[in-house]
Amino acid sequence: MTEVTFRSDMTVELIKHAAEDADVAFAARVSTLGGDTRFNEVSDKDAGLINFLMRDRHGSPFEHTSMTFLVETPIFVAREFFRHRAGFSYNEESGRYKELEPTFYVPADGRPLRQVGKPGAYEFSLGTYKQFMCVSGDIRRVSTEAYSSYKRLLDMEVAREVARMVLPVNIYTSFYVTCNARSLMHFLSLRTKRENAKVPTFPQLEIQMVADQMEEQFKALMPLTAAAFDKNGRVAP
Amino acid sequence: MTEVTFRSDMTVELIKHAAEDADVAFAARVSTLGGDTRFNEVSDKDAGLINFLMRDRHGSPFEHTSMTFLVETPIFVAREFFRHRAGFSYNEESGRYKELEPTFYVPADGRPLRQVGKPGAYEFSLGTYKQFMCVSGDIRRVSTEAYSSYKRLLDMEVAREVARMVLPVNIYTSFYVTCNARSLMHFLSLRTKRENAKVPTFPQLEIQMVADQMEEQFKALMPLTAAAFDKNGRVAP
Amino acid sequence: MTEVTFRSDMTVELIKHAAEDADVAFAARVSTLGGDTRFNEVSDKDAGLINFLMRDRHGSPFEHTSMTFLVETPIFVAREFFRHRAGFSYNEESGRYKELEPTFYVPADGRPLRQVGKPGAYEFSLGTYKQFMCVSGDIRRVSTEAYSSYKRLLDMEVAREVARMVLPVNIYTSFYVTCNARSLMHFLSLRTKRENAKVPTFPQLEIQMVADQMEEQFKALMPLTAAAFDKNGRVAP
Amino acid sequence: MTEVTFRSDMTVELIKHAAEDADVAFAARVSTLGGDTRFNEVSDKDAGLINFLMRDRHGSPFEHTSMTFLVETPIFVAREFFRHRAGFSYNEESGRYKELEPTFYVPADGRPLRQVGKPGAYEFSLGTYKQFMCVSGDIRRVSTEAYSSYKRLLDMEVAREVARMVLPVNIYTSFYVTCNARSLMHFLSLRTKRENAKVPTFPQLEIQMVADQMEEQFKALMPLTAAAFDKNGRVAP
Repeated sequence: MTEVTFRSDMTVELIKHAAEDADVAFAARVSTLGGDTRFNEVSDKDAGLINFLMRDRHGSPFEHTSMTFLVETPIFVAREFFRHRAGFSYNEESGRYKELEPTFYVPADGRPLRQVGKPGAYEFSLGTYKQFMCVSGDIRRVSTEAYSSYKRLLDMEVAREVARMVLPVNIYTSFYVTCNARSLMHFLSLRTKRENAKVPTFPQLEIQMVADQMEEQFKALMPLTAAAFDKNGRVAP
Repeated sequence: MTEVTFRSDMTVELIKHAAEDADVAFAARVSTLGGDTRFNEVSDKDAGLINFLMRDRHGSPFEHTSMTFLVETPIFVAREFFRHRAGFSYNEESGRYKELEPTFYVPADGRPLRQVGKPGAYEFSLGTYKQFMCVSGDIRRVSTEAYSSYKRLLDMEVAREVARMVLPVNIYTSFYVTCNARSLMHFLSLRTKRENAKVPTFPQLEIQMVADQMEEQFKALMPLTAAAFDKNGRVAP
Repeated sequence: MTEVTFRSDMTVELIKHAAEDADVAFAARVSTLGGDTRFNEVSDKDAGLINFLMRDRHGSPFEHTSMTFLVETPIFVAREFFRHRAGFSYNEESGRYKELEPTFYVPADGRPLRQVGKPGAYEFSLGTYKQFMCVSGDIRRVSTEAYSSYKRLLDMEVAREVARMVLPVNIYTSFYVTCNARSLMHFLSLRTKRENAKVPTFPQLEIQMVADQMEEQFKALMPLTAAAFDKNGRVAP
Repeated sequence: MTEVTFRSDMTVELIKHAAEDADVAFAARVSTLGGDTRFNEVSDKDAGLINFLMRDRHGSPFEHTSMTFLVETPIFVAREFFRHRAGFSYNEESGRYKELEPTFYVPADGRPLRQVGKPGAYEFSLGTYKQFMCVSGDIRRVSTEAYSSYKRLLDMEVAREVARMVLPVNIYTSFYVTCNARSLMHFLSLRTKRENAKVPTFPQLEIQMVADQMEEQFKALMPLTAAAFDKNGRVAP
């Protein structure tokens, strides 16, 4: 029988990029200088310029950048991710064209399991030991049985696109996603949770895990831009 | 115990629209006439104009239209639908904010179950009686058990966003989608299967069921445009 | 000789629309209620819901709306307008396909003519009588001479697309533009100037004249949405 | 008096890029292979894959690429360029924030000047010597006088955004534009003129000059993709 694997983490790997703070500065300067505005180094002046663009929400200079990530998440996270349309390109593995791997998400110990309150303003708390055992047990059992059924149907030569209908939304999928700094900041403004955010957000924990990793990569590539975003209330320009 | 319902059909209801053939004609005529180009009636001349725009792929005049649909499909269909980004707006029911209804998709008798060939060029055939019984039986069993687990976790006050992780991708979801005639034709060009299509397509049957219903509504609202689309090889302009 | 006409105003006519406050409410409610969420009347509850969506920047429910305008502006205004890409569709009269009308923009008495300060933070003041006379005189003279040259070249059977190269950017053009409430609010947030705007804006006066007319139309169609936009700092959700 | 410069060419400089044929292949393969699909080298197999994607119009794998160009063109060309919305980002020099340079476009000897036929199907012929002399003479004279007026108004401390209203659409502007391979091919399909194009196009010569240079750069970066585009009738996937 096929071994089923359970994971509680997300993979976000930066595959390629053409994204640095200098790109923002050269694009912004063309409005006041015209012509070729590429200069050698990012200077203190650029830091001020980038902060001004962020604060006053001049978004277009942030678009002349490109980052491609390989992401592995459960389907329920991918579903939320793919709602982001503007400035995002996707290619995902297909349940019609390939046999899906038996890898499923299960919440780690410490993942809040109880919600109190109403839509848009839920509070989460940790959950009891019994809740954790039931969640963990049920997810493992249902996932395993669903995957057994999937395999049995495939073995009977049922089409993949039909057999996959039994699989739960916590099965992992993988996709490439390409975005620019502006669209990425829009994603981060909605899918992270931070004290200093001007607009309150309620992202599901599992997509926060993806977004937090993306923000780390973003900070490393474009430190001035990422800092200006955070300093100005985490509102995408 | 909760009653679980199985369906083999898709719901596509036209909710509202501002979309008629005359809209295409008035938008196209502004390039050669300027100013206000609204005339009273759609004429034979408009049919020719719309056909010319379609054939030579002048797409922008088709965008000054709007159609909003309410769609009910399984999640695996919604996932394919939401890949359409340009000219599409969505709002979907949320597994975080509401308890999901126990309604699941099961293939009808006659749905081809076997696939032969390689990705991008699969051929489907009907499947044996035994295959049909196994598919139908497994989908019913796995869906029912998953929903029982979902309900048990909710009864234990586990958060909806956690409990839903056990639910399979054949559970129904509902969403509003708004598009224009251009983006709709792009969708139809990829998600329907017709002999006269210039570009071969391999849409999954279940999304064809949605697309075919949308095309019927489109034909009723914009008969000249829908006819020109079909006549010119079903390539979106 | 061709009579040349000068105008100091902008035309914004609402051509068609499928846009009301109830559209926002039904799209938003699907996330918590699922299924068909159209109810008969816009209620006080909807006003609260719309305000909540605006404040917390849930933008997608505002997209299930459509407004088409016929706009007449000088080319320099159309250039700024067409920078708006997401959620905007355009068809414009063509200087290649039609002979352009001899209608040109000239600033009205009272249009501030002097700018002090640096890019992004200019202050404008009214200008002297001499400045006004020179601006007005030069614009009239240059426009008239350019149009004479344009006509002379056309009379010699020079192609329209070549002859039009002499025409100044204050010549009027006309275009249809279709947008939704979300993209329109984004436009208004950048192209109007109001005391209560959270983000300072510096739109050119002539595009403000267009935006202000669009906002009036928007208010009449969607009063709750327009009020919530204004109340929440005029930031597009 | 300010020296006025006339040019008959366009500048298209590739500023930065993250765009190679291998990017298309890795993004496409994820649907059938899942996970990390980056392999070392572009192989013959990739050429076949890219050709298949182009022919059957699977467009999304071409989006995981990025090219930024610096373009210098007259305003009437920039106006056509900026009509391309999806997958394009722009930053342009501003007539509000900087004094515009006195550089104007004038057709070179050999630029067809006469048009015969009707919109959408014009034929162009070379034009007489007299036509050429009038076009060239008028453009030079009108541009020079307009720029003199512009400078005089600026010298009187009239705001740039007002003074620029007298400038003709053949004045040069400069902008950065970022696109991906898919959006670039869409642009090329409409703005170049080739015998082997499946859909007839009638782009103005001056934007062809820009598009042809962009295609040369594209070919150098992504030879397999550019060849597949040309081989398959120059229809964007």
